[in-house]
Amino acid sequence: MNINGTPTRSIWPHAGQPSVSIIDQTALPHRYSTIDLLTLEDAAHAIRSMQVRGAPLIGASAAYGVALAMNQVSDDDALALAIATLAATRPTAVNLHWALERMRAYLAPLPPSQRPAAAWSEASTIAEEDVAQNRAIGENGLILFKPLAEKRQLLNVMTHCNAGWLATVDHGTALSPVYAAFDAGIDVHVWVSETRPRNQGLLTAWELKQHGVPHTVIADNAAGLLLARGQVDAVIVGADRIARNGDVANKVGTYLKALAAREAGVPFYVAAPRSTIDFNCDNGNAIPIEEREGDELRLIHGCNADGHPASVRQLATEEAVANPAFDVTPARLVSTIITERGHCPAADLAMLYPEECHV
Amino acid sequence: MNINGTPTRSIWPHAGQPSVSIIDQTALPHRYSTIDLLTLEDAAHAIRSMQVRGAPLIGASAAYGVALAMNQVSDDDALALAIATLAATRPTAVNLHWALERMRAYLAPLPPSQRPAAAWSEASTIAEEDVAQNRAIGENGLILFKPLAEKRQLLNVMTHCNAGWLATVDHGTALSPVYAAFDAGIDVHVWVSETRPRNQGLLTAWELKQHGVPHTVIADNAAGLLLARGQVDAVIVGADRIARNGDVANKVGTYLKALAAREAGVPFYVAAPRSTIDFNCDNGNAIPIEEREGDELRLIHGCNADGHPASVRQLATEEAVANPAFDVTPARLVSTIITERGHCPAADLAMLYPEECHV
Repeated sequence: MNINGTPTRSIWPHAGQPSVSIIDQTALPHRYSTIDLLTLEDAAHAIRSMQVRGAPLIGASAAYGVALAMNQVSDDDALALAIATLAATRPTAVNLHWALERMRAYLAPLPPSQRPAAAWSEASTIAEEDVAQNRAIGENGLILFKPLAEKRQLLNVMTHCNAGWLATVDHGTALSPVYAAFDAGIDVHVWVSETRPRNQGLLTAWELKQHGVPHTVIADNAAGLLLARGQVDAVIVGADRIARNGDVANKVGTYLKALAAREAGVPFYVAAPRSTIDFNCDNGNAIPIEEREGDELRLIHGCNADGHPASVRQLATEEAVANPAFDVTPARLVSTIITERGHCPAADLAMLYPEECHV
Repeated sequence: MNINGTPTRSIWPHAGQPSVSIIDQTALPHRYSTIDLLTLEDAAHAIRSMQVRGAPLIGASAAYGVALAMNQVSDDDALALAIATLAATRPTAVNLHWALERMRAYLAPLPPSQRPAAAWSEASTIAEEDVAQNRAIGENGLILFKPLAEKRQLLNVMTHCNAGWLATVDHGTALSPVYAAFDAGIDVHVWVSETRPRNQGLLTAWELKQHGVPHTVIADNAAGLLLARGQVDAVIVGADRIARNGDVANKVGTYLKALAAREAGVPFYVAAPRSTIDFNCDNGNAIPIEEREGDELRLIHGCNADGHPASVRQLATEEAVANPAFDVTPARLVSTIITERGHCPAADLAMLYPEECHV
């Protein structure tokens, strides 16, 4: 996508150098800055601290993290340590484990001397595949959006968290159909949910603004009212993990929007690539839900009047806080899952991936 | 209730002086301070700027505002102006209009010279009635809580916004049964929803802490997960206006919790006095929903490291924002309405108020 007209991605390797750049998403939307990752620990820190976030981008970042590690030491112990270190950063996103397993399977049979070059090559392949898959998700989602837009000559889409190009290598998952609709001339407007406590909705507002897509930020609490009033034509979100039965783990608060969408008769779409689907996971009950630190609720980050990063405390350190990062939306509340292969009812993933669903 | 062991209310007149004190709720939970209201405009500003908030407290504050106005000028024009000024401060809370109408009906027939003393007397009566009603709501709610607590030897209650003693003259509405349960020795714990964008959940946490009631603050988004996991035995909220058919207007986000409670099979209680019920309003569609200024979302208020008030910007001024303050929970999602007279299914308010519901 673009930043001020300049094409960019959310992560990019440096030609001829064992390093990779990311956008520091903890500084957005207040400040655009990039960070160079040079070591395994740099990559693990970037994922853990959410400098990079979004299931697909976490996967790609982890793959590059293995490549960085292989440039340091490439024996079997180093490979195992790199994978274990990166796997421990975020428990819910399945793409992380998918990408690490793919890197392991590719690198383990090779002699250590060949691993550095092979790791960079495979990480780049994972990144390129992500871009291509997300472009396909956009086209497949557009097929669903078109008839909705034709009814009213406009399309009011609600989303939650950030599942745009910042959450992937490019294009995004949930926002890919939105960008495709905008680029196809559809009069699209996006309700952007703030997404407390980490406020990733501000990232969504930032990237929609870069692309010129009209949007309005709302408190998470306002989603039900807007849906009940008929001000939303479709809800579309990404996913951190989709179970075999179609249950969807995504940013906490997704489930509440799904309930309100069903009540209003509004379609609830989940857009995600194959790597987000965990066919080894029977249903949502088996998905671990990450509990993050309470300071995410106690401290609010923003900028001061001069635009410099600043924060305020809203709760004392001793105040008890619970901070689950994800929730599970049961398949029965998901109208349709959109992937790079097409779309299907949530309970029928076998329609798109028959090879994964042996009877 | 108590602050550091000292009995207090949320609003109190000064003996022998034409003034009334309030707690500045915009400074809580970071700083406890009081404000003296001396004029009509002081009272209108206090309501408009949410130095006082909560439907019952807004009603009592408006009644004292009329008394302050009568001390300034007490002719018919002044009475009409006072009522019109105060009525314009907040559109959704029906207690405001109820209290103003009661003051008008009481004062209009009197000669202007008698109005100041009569106004203070009637305002104090309204305040005392609120305290007595809320105490009764606590006792009536406790009847519902007891069997829930007996099942598990503890009671996990979820609430939204602040409907405690800070939102009333004393005791609170939704929190009155919680305090009654705690005082009766029940092992009660409260999930306190942050309640973006104004974060009134922090007021709830503050007042529960003053009384020693165990509680945990959560992001509004986490409510669905906690309900789905079985970590909540009951949801209880206050109301800003209840329609004749039992539809409930309350702080935006209430509706989402009601949907999640129904899905989890958890009772959803609404606690409010008679003055919150608008028997002239057929259903929720007729309730005006206040749209508040976007800076409530764009700027976050808290305190700095020294405990002084501070704020940070999270969205630029030009960023489009929608900020409805309330939503409507349909009667079908409300298990029970609790009032000073007892409790009843939401659709059967005539059971408690037969005199208001002539067939």
